[in-house]
Parts: sequence; structure tokens; C-alpha cells
Amino acid sequence: MKDVISYIDQHRQRFVDELIEWVKIPAISSDPERAPDMARNAEHLAESLRGLGADRVEVWPTAGHPAVFAEWLHAPGAPTLLVYGHHDVQPVDPLDEWVTPPFEPAIRDGRLWGRGVVDDKGQVYIHVKAIEAFIKTRKRLPINLKLIVEGEEEIGSEHLDALMREKSADLRADFVCVSDTAMFGRNIPSLCVGLRGLAYLEVRVDGPKNDLHSGSFGGGLLNPVNALAAMIAKLHDENGRVTVPGFYDRVHELTASERAEIKSLPFDEPEWLASTGSPAIHGEKGYSTLERVWARPTLDCNGIVGGFHGVGAKTIIPARAMAKISCRLVPHQEPEEIARLVGEHLKKIAPPGVRVTVEYLHGGRPYLAPTDHPVFEVAKRAFTKAFGQPTVFIREGGSIPFVRTIADATGKPCLLMGFGQPDENAHAPNEWLDLENYQLGIKSAAYLYEELLSVR
Amino acid sequence: MKDVISYIDQHRQRFVDELIEWVKIPAISSDPERAPDMARNAEHLAESLRGLGADRVEVWPTAGHPAVFAEWLHAPGAPTLLVYGHHDVQPVDPLDEWVTPPFEPAIRDGRLWGRGVVDDKGQVYIHVKAIEAFIKTRKRLPINLKLIVEGEEEIGSEHLDALMREKSADLRADFVCVSDTAMFGRNIPSLCVGLRGLAYLEVRVDGPKNDLHSGSFGGGLLNPVNALAAMIAKLHDENGRVTVPGFYDRVHELTASERAEIKSLPFDEPEWLASTGSPAIHGEKGYSTLERVWARPTLDCNGIVGGFHGVGAKTIIPARAMAKISCRLVPHQEPEEIARLVGEHLKKIAPPGVRVTVEYLHGGRPYLAPTDHPVFEVAKRAFTKAFGQPTVFIREGGSIPFVRTIADATGKPCLLMGFGQPDENAHAPNEWLDLENYQLGIKSAAYLYEELLSVR
Repeated sequence: MKDVISYIDQHRQRFVDELIEWVKIPAISSDPERAPDMARNAEHLAESLRGLGADRVEVWPTAGHPAVFAEWLHAPGAPTLLVYGHHDVQPVDPLDEWVTPPFEPAIRDGRLWGRGVVDDKGQVYIHVKAIEAFIKTRKRLPINLKLIVEGEEEIGSEHLDALMREKSADLRADFVCVSDTAMFGRNIPSLCVGLRGLAYLEVRVDGPKNDLHSGSFGGGLLNPVNALAAMIAKLHDENGRVTVPGFYDRVHELTASERAEIKSLPFDEPEWLASTGSPAIHGEKGYSTLERVWARPTLDCNGIVGGFHGVGAKTIIPARAMAKISCRLVPHQEPEEIARLVGEHLKKIAPPGVRVTVEYLHGGRPYLAPTDHPVFEVAKRAFTKAFGQPTVFIREGGSIPFVRTIADATGKPCLLMGFGQPDENAHAPNEWLDLENYQLGIKSAAYLYEELLSVR
Repeated sequence: MKDVISYIDQHRQRFVDELIEWVKIPAISSDPERAPDMARNAEHLAESLRGLGADRVEVWPTAGHPAVFAEWLHAPGAPTLLVYGHHDVQPVDPLDEWVTPPFEPAIRDGRLWGRGVVDDKGQVYIHVKAIEAFIKTRKRLPINLKLIVEGEEEIGSEHLDALMREKSADLRADFVCVSDTAMFGRNIPSLCVGLRGLAYLEVRVDGPKNDLHSGSFGGGLLNPVNALAAMIAKLHDENGRVTVPGFYDRVHELTASERAEIKSLPFDEPEWLASTGSPAIHGEKGYSTLERVWARPTLDCNGIVGGFHGVGAKTIIPARAMAKISCRLVPHQEPEEIARLVGEHLKKIAPPGVRVTVEYLHGGRPYLAPTDHPVFEVAKRAFTKAFGQPTVFIREGGSIPFVRTIADATGKPCLLMGFGQPDENAHAPNEWLDLENYQLGIKSAAYLYEELLSVR
């Protein structure tokens, strides 16, 4: 691999410069007025892929923003890797908190600052530049490779399922690699092997037909806010476990080796806590913080509202109260089932003085990588070669519904090989990319392509 | 009393017409732009009192809206009655729900419709017209009478205490009569002998320093909304009793005769429930609905807010949550003490994963009339003479802080002789006054003045 690695080192500055040019395009998918920028953004990526020896480079239209597809199928008999990324970026508000403008990328402290530098344009370019390194040094890739870069990840990938069905033949592969996550910490190459799912509900509690005077009626009727509070309180026991019957039925306990692996990570709990501003650690009894946020299901109120909440006092019995309640799910839990169980339980514990309605808003399925598949050891080896540090398995408490979708659709292992950092401000002002990580990422991708040859 | 009663009958239509003229003045005390109307409103009342043989008719300025004062002290040796009312009215929103405009009073179905017709302009005019009936028929009142009509009742009577201190000599009296409440029902003359007090708190629960991603952090930190809900849930036990230590320490149990009197009232519970729209009766075990809303203390959430509560879903651990919590108090409970007990208890039950702050917003003391004082039998007799129906003692679950203030300041019994109806829309669109009640109210006041001569 000396030739390829050496090429990557020689072109380090140009790889950064070219990323900067792409980041300048304000590809905010949520802003309808940016549709022309989204098209330009996709075309810019396609153009940067042309001349890299691909069999096809195509911009695929969707009912929303376009996706970009390319494929290199010059390695008969070798496995095929499907790489996923996205070319759209988050909005930039609040704009006045940016040190330098989001679409005028700047380099400071060894970092590139700008919207999309790491989420996900930088990570897409890691693959583009690894491909270039092979093509320019060897005229071909060691494996077959397909690249799909969608334009709607930041707005829920609304049209991705339809596109994947339409293009299912084009997207066929042996392995999938998603580069859209973060490393556990600086210089700790990390493969994410688990994602939590989600079941999101809205609960409404109705009492009187309108707000009533709390003097004239207080004490004679059940107050919907008090009732909702009591119902929410009943959803956890004193050990922080969710009390909904059946909630844990499909949850697999962490194995001793999974727990040992999590425990071995250099997790600085006091620093983590300080970064949140909360006064104390809290969670399900019998589990560590990383276990709680990675591998245990939760039930949280994402919001609540009812009655008067302005400045001062208003003496009413509110007519209604509402809470948003969502559960983070772990492997084997199903969003629809959990939503049903929680909804049924809420109705069961609803007191007779109020009417309770529950609406299932949306969900996403959890993902657990089949880490006993040999491709994970291969990916670890590739990652470790690039960074000179052992690669760890981590999980992510959030959800990337696409991962589960593509894993189910292809039936193939999905490698979550991310090059971000935990504090990279991916969805906040001052998003940054560590330029050393960018360079090591390109090498990691190159090593991965090379090493995948050994997996059959 | 034939002369006086006959005069009231003869002038029935004019009494209504004159009230209509006064109601036309939009005396909304909460609207700073209405200050000139408030001044005009006070002057209109003062003018209607001039020519009724008063020793003094004065408009008393305050730091806010003016009050009107008049006195008739032509009955040496007779007791002195202080009558309290207010000339300001509630706001009129939502304006489009009014059948006829709030300040263009209209007569329909034997009712006068308009803002302030019963709260409290109509009830003030009941006394004005009773006074007129005596003056025009006998040139004098049977007792000494002082009338104070303030202009800030609907905005918390902010400057009334200062005015009462400043004018304490002018306001000295043997009995107080407040006409600003409702009768128990149509044709049921009612003396209100108890008012609940109030202690109003704001509770804030802080967790992380900003909203956190519920995927990355959910399960590892205490969620402030969940925490607040659990705290609120702990404030009641399974019998609907408030669990705050010391909460009931000063509460006197209802006596057997008080309970019997309440039970004797023609209370239609299904109708009351239907009027609220709630699906079921609810409250403290061991008490009837009227006992619960009149004579038992409560703890209610008047409002709650935290996290995301818009349309759709947002997956956050909210940084904070807030609830407005108020207690209705019964005689012998003190607002400051209850606020302290509830606040201390909330802090005591606050879990370590959040920071809890409690602010006491305001309070009002409860009132219990000294019904063993002979003036109550006299008032009952007067009321019964006018209506031809037995007068009942009732209570009111709400608070009129002024009543307790004047009762304490004067040390004299306070008669709450109200002529409204329970569904009069006093603070809502389409406020109305039963014109038959208006007429009988004038007679009731006249009988009261006459009968008070017998109390020494």
C-alpha cells in the first residue's frame, strides 16, 4: 500500500482545498429556496467523481433533492462494497454564533470550520479521495465499489426508501459502509456497531371542556396536568426501570464480553457530566452510563405543556395537558410494538376523571451489527493501520434509520466507520473537521478497500 | 316598608335604563389606554349619587384608578354600614363571541347583557337605587351608610390597602356589606359566609444546561420533565389528600351542622359535572363535591411547560421544566406558611439529578364569617323578605382578598350579599344580569338597611 498511502500524503493540501470548494455550496436541504443549490451541490460531487475511472457517475433525481451514484466494477471475483453518505447539510441558525461564516470555510487550529465539513461532506470526500488514490496510482480499485450519496439525510431521508427500491439492482453489494458517525475520542478509531431505535408518542389528557376557575372548581374535578404528571411518574419505578408491561421482553441483556468492551473504553464520566451541565448522573440501576445511553432502552418526556405558563399567575384548572413521550429502543425491540405497549399502559393507568388519547408519531428501528462476521475484524485492522491505534467497537444512542433499512434490504453487514469527533458541532454553529483525522480517514478508507479482498 | 318597596316597583324601568347608561362606559381597568374611561366611569357614579342627600360624595384618587366614596350619617344612634363594590370591569376578549357588543347593553330574555352588568356595576347600582328609594320617600336612610366603590378589583386591588389605611377614619363602620358574589341558584337568596384563600407558587426544575439530544444522552441523565412530573405526582396520596407535611394542621374539620347545611342545598351534581365537561367527579375522599370546593384546601397545577411541545416530534432531553402550583386555602390556613411548607417539601422530594427552585408569587387569606353574630340572622331575614324564599348560607371556593382585609381591618362582620347567578359569565363573553334579580336585589338592600336597626 506504499504507493497509495504515499499519494494520499503528497496530495494532502489539495484534498483539503477541494473539500473547501464543495463546502462553499450552501446545501441546506430543509430550505426550499436552496433547491438550486442542492442540484448544484450534487452536480459538483458528480463532477469531482468524473475522471476517476468510474463505470457510471449519475445524478439520480428523486421527488425531493437528487442523490449521486457512482460505481467501479473492475474487480471481477472481488467483493462489492456499497458506501453511503449524504451531501446535504444542517441549517446554520443561529448565524451570529459562527466565528467565521458557515459557507466560507476557514482553517484554524488544525481544523476546517464550516457547515457540512464533517457532516457529511468531509466524510464523503474521504472515500472520494481514497478512490482517487487507487485510480491515480493503480488505475483500478482492489474491490468493486458503489457510492450512493443522498441529498435528504438532514430532513429524514424521505425519498430514500423509494429510491432504494427503484435502484435495488444497482445498489446490490456484499458489504455496506456508512461514514456519518463520530469516533469515541481523538485518535481512537471506532467502529459503531449499535444504534438505538425510536418510538415517539404524543399523549393528550382532557378534563373540563375549557379552563375553569380554580377557586370555583378546584378540588371537585381531576386536574389534567396533575393527572398527566401522575401518569408520567408511574412510567418508571424506583430503580429507573420502565414499568410498561412487556417493555423489556425483547431486550437482550448485554453479554459479559460486551460489557467488558464498553468498560475498557476511556470514558471520562465527570467530564461527560460537566459537559451536560446536569448536577448528577442518573439512570437505570445496575448499568454504567455508557451502557445506559448505548444499550438500554429509555422512556423520556421530550416536552410537556398544559394550562397557564406565562409570567405571573392565573388561577385555572386547565382543560387539557399534552406530553411528547419517546422511547429509545435497543436491538430486538420494535417501534410499533413498544408504541402500542406504552399507549395501552397509559390508557390503563389513566384515572377516570380525564380522557386520554395517544398518537404514535413515528419510529425507527434499532441496529446491532453482526460483529461475529469476519468483515468487522477486517475493518478494525484497516482502521488500526491508518491510525496506529487499536480500533474499538462503540455504539451510538441515537438513531440512523437508514442503517437498519439498508441492512435489512441487503441482508449484508453494515460498517459504521465514522471520522467525526464527539464535540464537532455537527448540528450547531461552528462545525469543524479535524484535518489530521481527514487525512487518516482517507488512509483508513484505502486500507479498508484493500483489506476487504481477504473477506469471502 | 310599603313606601320604599312601592317606589322601587314604580321606578323599575328607569333603574334599568340608568344602569345601561353606566355600563356603556368601557371601564376596563387592566387596559392602560382606558384610564380616561376609568376616570369618567368614577365621575359618572359620583354624579348619580349626588342629589341623593349624601353628606359627602367624593372621587378619591389613588396611585392607580380612582375610587368613589359617599356617606349618609343622618341616623344618630343607629349602626353604620359600609358597602363595598367596584366600578371597573373585566376585559372583553374574545370579542367575536359576544352576541351583542359588550359596551352596548341589550335586553334579551329578561336579562341585561353587557360587560360589567353584574360584575359589579349592577350590584353597585342595587345599593345606589335602594338608597334613592329611601331618600326619595323618607328623605333619610334608616341607618348610617358609607359606600366605597373601588376601580381596581379586576386587577388585584393593588392600591386599596393604602387607600384604606389613608381613609381608615372615613371607613369606620359596624358592619360591612360586599355585593360582588353570586346566589346559589335562581331565586335562592344566598349569604356567602366562607371564601377560600390562595397560595401561588412557581416551581422550576433545571437539568442540563441546554436541551440535549435524547439519543446521545437519553437514559444517562435525569429528565427535568420526568422529574417534575414525579414530584407533582407525589403531592397527592391515593385518597386525593395533599401529602405536604403540616398542610392540614390548621384546617378545622367541618362541623356536623355545617355539613348538614351544605347537604341541604339543592345541588344538582350531574348538572354541575355536565357544565364542566369533565368525565367524572374527583376529589378528596370522604367529602362531597360542595365540601371539596368550598371548605377543603386543594393543590392544583395551574400550568406546566417544558421541552418541545409544538407540532410533530423533537427528540430532546429538555434543559428545564416549570409548573405553576397553587393551593386554595380554607379558614385558619395562612398563605405564607402553606407556600413555605409546599416549597420545602418540593425541595425535599427533588431528586439529585435536577436543581429545583421555588418562588412564591402571591397569596390571599381565606375568610370565614362569624355566623353566630346576630347580624347574619338579620341579613337572612331581609333577603328572605325581598325574595319570598328562605335565605341559605353558602361558601365560595374562590378568593376575594379584600373581604379578609376589611374584616381584619375593621374587626366587624362582613356580609357577602351577592345577586349574581352561577352561570352569569362574569369573566367571559356575554355577561348577563337577571333583571328580576336586579329588582329583588334593590329590595333586599332596602330591607337590609331597615332591618339593621334592630342589631345593636
